[in-house]
Amino acid sequence: MLQRSIAPRAGRRRNFVPIGRALCATALRRRAGPCRTRNMFQNFDDEGAGERADGARTGRLREFMAERGIDGYLVPRCDEHQGEYVAAAADRLRWLTGFTGSAGLAIVLGDRAALFVDGRYVVQAPAQVDTDVYEVLEVPAAKPATWLTGALGGSGSKARIGLDARLHTIAEVARLEAALATAGAELVSLEDNLVDAIWRDRPAPSVAPVVVHPLEHAGREAGEKIATFQAVLGDGDADAQVLTLTDSIAWLFNIRGADVPHNPVVLAFAIVHRDARPELFIEPAKLGADVRAYLEGLVTLYPPGELGERLDALGRAGARVRLEPESAGYWFEMVLEGAGAVVCHGPDPARIAKARKNPVEIAGSRRAHRRDGTAMARFLAWLAREAPGGGLDEIGAARKLEGFRADTGALQEISFDTISGAGAHGAIVHYRVSLATNRKLEAGTLYLVDSGGQYLDGTTDITRTIAVGTPDMEMCERFTRVLQGHIALATARFPRGTRGVDLDPFARRALWQAGLDYGHGTGHGVGSYLSVHEGPATISRRGMVALEADMILSNEPGYYKEGAYGIRIENLVLVREAEIAGAERDMLEFETLSLAPIDRALVVADLLSDAERAWLDAYHARVLDEIGPTLDGADAEWLTAACAPIDRPD
Amino acid sequence: MLQRSIAPRAGRRRNFVPIGRALCATALRRRAGPCRTRNMFQNFDDEGAGERADGARTGRLREFMAERGIDGYLVPRCDEHQGEYVAAAADRLRWLTGFTGSAGLAIVLGDRAALFVDGRYVVQAPAQVDTDVYEVLEVPAAKPATWLTGALGGSGSKARIGLDARLHTIAEVARLEAALATAGAELVSLEDNLVDAIWRDRPAPSVAPVVVHPLEHAGREAGEKIATFQAVLGDGDADAQVLTLTDSIAWLFNIRGADVPHNPVVLAFAIVHRDARPELFIEPAKLGADVRAYLEGLVTLYPPGELGERLDALGRAGARVRLEPESAGYWFEMVLEGAGAVVCHGPDPARIAKARKNPVEIAGSRRAHRRDGTAMARFLAWLAREAPGGGLDEIGAARKLEGFRADTGALQEISFDTISGAGAHGAIVHYRVSLATNRKLEAGTLYLVDSGGQYLDGTTDITRTIAVGTPDMEMCERFTRVLQGHIALATARFPRGTRGVDLDPFARRALWQAGLDYGHGTGHGVGSYLSVHEGPATISRRGMVALEADMILSNEPGYYKEGAYGIRIENLVLVREAEIAGAERDMLEFETLSLAPIDRALVVADLLSDAERAWLDAYHARVLDEIGPTLDGADAEWLTAACAPIDRPD
Repeated sequence: MLQRSIAPRAGRRRNFVPIGRALCATALRRRAGPCRTRNMFQNFDDEGAGERADGARTGRLREFMAERGIDGYLVPRCDEHQGEYVAAAADRLRWLTGFTGSAGLAIVLGDRAALFVDGRYVVQAPAQVDTDVYEVLEVPAAKPATWLTGALGGSGSKARIGLDARLHTIAEVARLEAALATAGAELVSLEDNLVDAIWRDRPAPSVAPVVVHPLEHAGREAGEKIATFQAVLGDGDADAQVLTLTDSIAWLFNIRGADVPHNPVVLAFAIVHRDARPELFIEPAKLGADVRAYLEGLVTLYPPGELGERLDALGRAGARVRLEPESAGYWFEMVLEGAGAVVCHGPDPARIAKARKNPVEIAGSRRAHRRDGTAMARFLAWLAREAPGGGLDEIGAARKLEGFRADTGALQEISFDTISGAGAHGAIVHYRVSLATNRKLEAGTLYLVDSGGQYLDGTTDITRTIAVGTPDMEMCERFTRVLQGHIALATARFPRGTRGVDLDPFARRALWQAGLDYGHGTGHGVGSYLSVHEGPATISRRGMVALEADMILSNEPGYYKEGAYGIRIENLVLVREAEIAGAERDMLEFETLSLAPIDRALVVADLLSDAERAWLDAYHARVLDEIGPTLDGADAEWLTAACAPIDRPD
Repeated sequence: MLQRSIAPRAGRRRNFVPIGRALCATALRRRAGPCRTRNMFQNFDDEGAGERADGARTGRLREFMAERGIDGYLVPRCDEHQGEYVAAAADRLRWLTGFTGSAGLAIVLGDRAALFVDGRYVVQAPAQVDTDVYEVLEVPAAKPATWLTGALGGSGSKARIGLDARLHTIAEVARLEAALATAGAELVSLEDNLVDAIWRDRPAPSVAPVVVHPLEHAGREAGEKIATFQAVLGDGDADAQVLTLTDSIAWLFNIRGADVPHNPVVLAFAIVHRDARPELFIEPAKLGADVRAYLEGLVTLYPPGELGERLDALGRAGARVRLEPESAGYWFEMVLEGAGAVVCHGPDPARIAKARKNPVEIAGSRRAHRRDGTAMARFLAWLAREAPGGGLDEIGAARKLEGFRADTGALQEISFDTISGAGAHGAIVHYRVSLATNRKLEAGTLYLVDSGGQYLDGTTDITRTIAVGTPDMEMCERFTRVLQGHIALATARFPRGTRGVDLDPFARRALWQAGLDYGHGTGHGVGSYLSVHEGPATISRRGMVALEADMILSNEPGYYKEGAYGIRIENLVLVREAEIAGAERDMLEFETLSLAPIDRALVVADLLSDAERAWLDAYHARVLDEIGPTLDGADAEWLTAACAPIDRPD
């Protein structure tokens, strides 16, 4: 699955005018996830249908703004953990505006309001929000600061723009401040969240039970991880680090939960001290007796409402506290500095430690990929049999695929809502099928399916593009170029220190030579029974983090012809040390983890080099070898044919 | 020719403690370049021989430091223009320490001193400096701040480290301050330069005459360039920009000079006003009547000593003045802010405008490359005839090559000291041959020659690696991998917006697959009868500037086996728009400008793909077509053989 954009790094902060001290209790309310059909993790509801926000909510917000003496208010999509998914209680942007996308920012002024979204949502957002209330603008072409300059033009005095500092990272606040300064405005931090204040029927926070992620899957005891974390803190000369990323916390303490869709994380905060027990802030109702006993062996537990007091305690002790500016809410810096702590900026050490999988996690991932490969093979075989009949549609295919994954008996969740895109829908990079958009798989089109499973031993994420009926030559040529990019990355060797940005061009070259490209990154990190998108490494234009052995990333070049079809070929890959005779550098390479046939009907053999053909045949031989024995009858026969060597050109 | 490292971008400044106001007059003294043999731009003296600095100079510096109440003093290699070459009068680091490298920083404390150099100079520097006085340390592994922390360890109070703010950029001062803060030290700007104060026989500043670069080569009137520059200033809301880069100034006003070796620039400063005539600060003795009349038609002329007063005038007017933090001396910011100006940071608009060559410059470059190609062909033919005799050496070859360039009748200068490296010397990336190091070209070795010419119509830069006698198989295989990288870059197509960092990996892939690499960037910008290394675009790990049509860059992958041999294949390339049928993006590609055979004796045809072989044969056919008619007799025969198609593998 493709990753959403990653924010650029922080600049310096200045001119921030906080109003009073923030409190944290309200920010931690959450509620259980949405209802699901039994055995189905995905629903196909028309999002926003029946709940289209009218201007009344925005009107009430404006009344509160006037009461507080502010000229504007920022409503981001993020919650206080900056995760990809937010709980219903934190979905303020959706409640206020009706917009259901995964990234966006609303700015509400006294007489105007704007919703800033990226290119993925320029069609969807105007359909979901009341455009009499909100202008919908596309970033990065449209800039909030530019819009504000125009909107505030006549005001004369310096405008005060309010925000909830829990929901904006330290880095983001620095950028916002700089941008607002050019618009003659200043940021003002408000104690409470103004949307929450007017949201009468706000859902209750999740109390989904926390479970211990056992050593047989985690591979390392939490106590050992904590000790390593503390050693890193000591090296960096910090007394403590505040953790706000839910997957860092889940990884560090070997716990999992169900507070947000698809990512088995627990909404929680933690303070890790260099020389004392970690403090974990978590809703007590989520903890059964066993889990509580387990956690009390590692940490001091607090209800979330005590976070502010414990940050104050750090301040009173004059502690040097580290925050990761790209992920920690600015509220933490305000509270800590206000209480007398010395705040320093540095990475969350759990992010890089978590990204380097341990041997148990690696073995688990290989096992999960074989299991998932069986489900994929059964699905693709079913598709090959059923699609020619013409009766299949996107929802039916997604349900069937989830069913095959569920048949493994090991599926805990799907990794994300399956992207099941027929024909032109395949060109919508983050397409979500709903009852309103559901489309038939028609002959002469391509079907793109991007999906994954959450298993206790690993998280999977795979995309295949399948010809329905007979594809045309252009589809095949472009598919082959995408495949060449996929192979170029899969076979790359690179010296230690190579970053994602240095590998991304390999996946694009074959397309570039034909004047084609794709508008997303090529790879993202993947968690171990955790978030399907995890940092810090990516393979993209912005991938400035060096890849290291034992990281798991995706390899997913694509090509999208708007209104016609989409192509993406995605496998997960493991970074490993390369053994090369005569090598003068420490070299790394990828091992492909995902196991499912690539549609041979779309491959133009003449375009491939000998080495590319050899890679494809070897990959298919491996798929057949590892997955074949798990299949029966027609499925097994189909796989054998799907994995046959491709024809050599003359 | 390879480019030296480029400094990372600026952070924010703080804690800077300026002592008094700086004056600028002394910083602008300079003298004529070193004496040259007639017709030879390169000399082969043993640099540092007979002038090895003993500790006495450093001792005198320490006396001055004590007088000024500072605990340390910084002596960088750069002058106030941050150019690659410095005039003799500005070569303070060399005078103080004996070190002749092109980059370095000395830190002198009361009882200790260190010289920080990069990997290119770790062998040379200890041989040149008195290591009883200076510890020689290699950056980036060694960090000045870390060394200072240790060296100042016991002092207790905050150490004061002095510098000449003219010689350190705004960005560099920000980094130094941050680094020194961690070492418990602070930076102190001194009014005068302490090295100059003790340098009794300091050379006089250059008064080399300035010449007008005529429209037939410049392609655009200076008045037109200035108007465009002023329009950019207006867009950026700045009243004026101070120019400190000598090649920006030479380009903007269409002038050239001879104040530093190899780069035909004039040491000068300029203030470009949005709404008024530019002010140009230049030594009057350099201006003949015609040049003075030409310049007075464009600018107001001042002697350099009046720069401070004119900056004060900007301050008195409350002007908003833009400085480029990566190239402007911190002194400018101090003076301007002290006088009441508002300093803003932004790029020098001449850099990017200069990088995009105009049609006259492009035609000139093609002409210069054909002319230079003739000289190279004559040289390579001569080498092929003479090398087997065993009598050639590095100096003799470099002299001969300069002679062939001089024979064109158009050579104004060489672009840089020719790197003429036989055998193991080829592995020294910035090797400079001298009488002491001169080495024979021996059978069974490789000879690497990196050279270029300054012509009125263009600057060239080309590297060829030649087999002397019979090369071994390893040499050929590695040469072929370097060639594959060169071809991969030469044939790349890429969408508008692609940066150098996105292209650099193409040049490395063939080496990476074998566990090999090279430790330098792949390409640098090249001026038009200007600096052979010019910004802002590079093709390297750090190349974050998008390549644009009409830029000229080098394509120079390499491979270096320490103590054995070096390989580099360099051509200059022009970025141009690519015409691709069916392209969906605006695409760019390269046109190779350099014209000289690549040694076929080193090519392993079996390693090349069909497309790679086709490129090499087509390139050679073009070389023969364009250069062949300019040669006679044995040279022409040699070129015909050197450009023959390579043998196909079976």
